[in-house]
Amino acid sequence: MSSSPSLDTLIEALQCLPGVGQKSAQRMALYLIERDRAGAQRIAVSLNQALEKVSHCQQCRNFADSDICQICANSGRDDSLICIVETPADVLAMESSGAYRGLYFVLLGRLSPLDGLGPEQLGLESLEVRLADQTLKEVILATSATVEGDITAQFIADVASKYSIETSRLARGIPLGGELEFVDSGTLSRALSGRQHYDR
Amino acid sequence: MSSSPSLDTLIEALQCLPGVGQKSAQRMALYLIERDRAGAQRIAVSLNQALEKVSHCQQCRNFADSDICQICANSGRDDSLICIVETPADVLAMESSGAYRGLYFVLLGRLSPLDGLGPEQLGLESLEVRLADQTLKEVILATSATVEGDITAQFIADVASKYSIETSRLARGIPLGGELEFVDSGTLSRALSGRQHYDR
Repeated sequence: MSSSPSLDTLIEALQCLPGVGQKSAQRMALYLIERDRAGAQRIAVSLNQALEKVSHCQQCRNFADSDICQICANSGRDDSLICIVETPADVLAMESSGAYRGLYFVLLGRLSPLDGLGPEQLGLESLEVRLADQTLKEVILATSATVEGDITAQFIADVASKYSIETSRLARGIPLGGELEFVDSGTLSRALSGRQHYDR
Repeated sequence: MSSSPSLDTLIEALQCLPGVGQKSAQRMALYLIERDRAGAQRIAVSLNQALEKVSHCQQCRNFADSDICQICANSGRDDSLICIVETPADVLAMESSGAYRGLYFVLLGRLSPLDGLGPEQLGLESLEVRLADQTLKEVILATSATVEGDITAQFIADVASKYSIETSRLARGIPLGGELEFVDSGTLSRALSGRQHYDR
């Protein structure tokens, strides 16, 4: 118990943030109240605004402020490419790479029948509608490099092959700056089998 | 840029939290919007409430919801003891030790003339009023174990001696669980000079 119940409530509430325990929550609350009340105000306002406005894009299932998200609505993007990812965080990661200018489709999960996640929960029906459309030229499967991610990618590749659309999967191999000595054997074996020949 | 401007604003706002950068802010924002909207609501409400209600206690300068904080207002506490600390966080640390049941006085800083922090900024006038009062029996100086903390403690001890009130300073020495091998030489020298004799 501290000297102020409102402060206690705030410390308690901040602990719902991921990776924030009692001590960090206390530090954050004291910092906000002591030194950055304007920042605290900004957080409260933007939280309320996000809670009110943010829902899922009806086209790609990513977060959006309106029916269609800013990426889907952007006419400057290449609508012949679609990249399939698992989560909105994956979209942010792809965007920050700056290497992709196509559209996305967010599964909001991966195939996992034991957890009750089937094709329906991942919105694959609405994805199929887009695949049937003639504008798409390539589907890039960017689900994660795990067993479930691979199965999900394979499933979607099978669907796409029905519409004879080209499909690809993100390359596996040694990460940038990776030293051979410290790379795990699974990654090394994938890097070897996926080796690229020099053009001559 | 993500797919939702409200989400971007939230990620931006969360970065004012101490120890939170771009990546953590993103993780927090996505977590709140995806999985814990009730938690997000609680944070927003408690932030607004804290901003509106929390000010400083007129008696001890700690945070309080009303004019007098909950610790000063608690009649169960020993009002013959006063513990002088630098920050509200120090009060929380003392309280969590559970070893102290007296009152506090929060300096909100330490003497540092170069930074413009003199006796006036630390509220030492109002502290002196309380020292002049006859109820106090002991002043416990719990400013930090730094040069500035020591000077601040010495200054307050001098003031208290005018009113012939007993003063004490938190013990210095080897921390609990500390291994001699890894204790720095300054601490070791203080622990030696402050050694306690066994009763026989």
